[in-house]
Amino acid sequence: MSFAALKNDIFLRALQRQAVPYTPIWLMRQAGRYLEEYRATRARAGSFMGLAQNPEFATEVTLQPLDRFPLDAAILFSDILTVPHAMGLGLQFVAGEGPQFERPVQDEQSVKALSVPDLAELQYVFDAVSMIRRELCGRVPLIGFAGSPFTIGCYMIEGQGTREYRLIKTMMYARPDLLHHVLEINARATTDYLNAQIAAGAQAVMLFDSWGGVLPDGKYQEFSLAYMRQVCQGLTREVDGVKIPVIVFTKGGGLWIEEIADIGCDALGLDWTVNLGHARQRVADRVALQGNMDPMSLFANEDAVRAEARRLLDSYGKVGKGGHVFNLGHGISQHTPPDNVAALVDEVHAYSRQFHG
Amino acid sequence: MSFAALKNDIFLRALQRQAVPYTPIWLMRQAGRYLEEYRATRARAGSFMGLAQNPEFATEVTLQPLDRFPLDAAILFSDILTVPHAMGLGLQFVAGEGPQFERPVQDEQSVKALSVPDLAELQYVFDAVSMIRRELCGRVPLIGFAGSPFTIGCYMIEGQGTREYRLIKTMMYARPDLLHHVLEINARATTDYLNAQIAAGAQAVMLFDSWGGVLPDGKYQEFSLAYMRQVCQGLTREVDGVKIPVIVFTKGGGLWIEEIADIGCDALGLDWTVNLGHARQRVADRVALQGNMDPMSLFANEDAVRAEARRLLDSYGKVGKGGHVFNLGHGISQHTPPDNVAALVDEVHAYSRQFHG
Repeated sequence: MSFAALKNDIFLRALQRQAVPYTPIWLMRQAGRYLEEYRATRARAGSFMGLAQNPEFATEVTLQPLDRFPLDAAILFSDILTVPHAMGLGLQFVAGEGPQFERPVQDEQSVKALSVPDLAELQYVFDAVSMIRRELCGRVPLIGFAGSPFTIGCYMIEGQGTREYRLIKTMMYARPDLLHHVLEINARATTDYLNAQIAAGAQAVMLFDSWGGVLPDGKYQEFSLAYMRQVCQGLTREVDGVKIPVIVFTKGGGLWIEEIADIGCDALGLDWTVNLGHARQRVADRVALQGNMDPMSLFANEDAVRAEARRLLDSYGKVGKGGHVFNLGHGISQHTPPDNVAALVDEVHAYSRQFHG
Repeated sequence: MSFAALKNDIFLRALQRQAVPYTPIWLMRQAGRYLEEYRATRARAGSFMGLAQNPEFATEVTLQPLDRFPLDAAILFSDILTVPHAMGLGLQFVAGEGPQFERPVQDEQSVKALSVPDLAELQYVFDAVSMIRRELCGRVPLIGFAGSPFTIGCYMIEGQGTREYRLIKTMMYARPDLLHHVLEINARATTDYLNAQIAAGAQAVMLFDSWGGVLPDGKYQEFSLAYMRQVCQGLTREVDGVKIPVIVFTKGGGLWIEEIADIGCDALGLDWTVNLGHARQRVADRVALQGNMDPMSLFANEDAVRAEARRLLDSYGKVGKGGHVFNLGHGISQHTPPDNVAALVDEVHAYSRQFHG
């Protein structure tokens, strides 16, 4: 495949800790419900999966935030649960209750019946990646993504969102062999899935370990980090001589960042509990850092939003041999005022110039 | 008041990093729904507040777990929301939805109308403390407790449980002066409340900062830690020549333990994401540590429960100049099999002897 040359590669350069003129910014879930144009497309699509499985709709919503704000990256519109859905678990979005699986993996028989899905089942994702990449015309890079093996395992085993993670943790403590079997399959599936996104045009990829942070120290390393390492080691890292950077984000993983920095990724996502300056020291600038504003700070007034952005940029400090991609520490909330997003992007671009060059 | 002499002071000694023969254990929410005898008393009381506000019932359920398991401490049966209830916010427990306030604090007028409650409104708590202390007959020490100023502030402002903390965080970012006003009142109220529990017979006290961990670095120190420091500094620390140790527990606060150890407390509660050995090094044995088993590990089989207890005791290691109180990293879950609790207590008592003396 051949795509237009990239006009703004600041995001990709920052991930590789190369010199850039300002700190790039994108926002997790930037194509989402806080935008009225997203809600309009979502209504036309009829359902969340109708949106995610249709490359035209997925392309449309992926580009919407870029038309509003001068963001430095686009991210594929999709969901981390496409992979277990392709494994045949029967994903459903129940109104007001979030995603659920019809056939969760809750006994030895269903664990043993799991297999790496046929990528043909996920062709709609790769089609969306290629279409978005074409439609971007080189404006900014396109990020592909997947859930971490442990995080998709949570949904596969619990069958739905949970507060306690009782089923997956009971399996972990009582039958670690079964959970390792699930995670091994998930790691292979995730590697194939991300490599296919890269082949289709993704210029960077991100692993979302949304739930690794609920694990005890020791178990995190064994049941989440080890499988993310396996994925990182299996990824295509260069296409046509251009590096494909990998970002790993364990929400609530601030205690483990030295270890995460060692699994072969280029950048760490951080949530807002982590001090950016301390994090840099702890990882000794071996990786770039992405984050980490509290999404709730976008509900204050514009002056407060700008002040908070400056506080975080100050905390990262002079970039030097590091690399910083500004982001939130979690997905943007659906009631966020879009004007505050505009103020945030503006402030990050303007205020950060002093920390570069 | 005069009470029976203490027969088992191992918990109090461990909190003060004094020599003990084995690692003491108690469990957060040990008097709770996982025990059928608790459910029976709760049914007779008619409602949660009917239970908490009646000293006879509160005494009965507080003692129940001690009759089953050789735990090393009792903890007052109550709720952290008694304080805002006494401020007139109208606490209600709605079936299936958890606690709610009829009159949450959501605008400047209601913030300015707040005041430190009359302790007479909380006399039922102090009566329960004295009655429990008498009924304990010196078997083990009695722990009093309160929510942290920030944590009760979350409920006061949100009006109910929340995932995003949007209202309190919006106030924090947009009108920090208002939130500081609420927290200042909460800190004074909490200090008075814990001192009255100590006067009524509590032999140690614990501050539960259940939600401080949702704050960004920087804001945690300003909006949660500073007020816990104020409480610690205002507490009665000795009664009749006997020290009253103070435990501070910020769930999700593992990144900040050096700072928490500096606010004048005797011990830190830790959740299961923290490595006990690393935590000891970080606080340089200046405080004792309490924790930190994942409550979900109690859903596995007895062998797995015992193995996990040993793993954590090993991780703390030889106690030496430190101090370790075994506990969970969060309250025990309501469906926990009581037999596994018995196995846990037995394993901690037996296996820990090698680390002492």
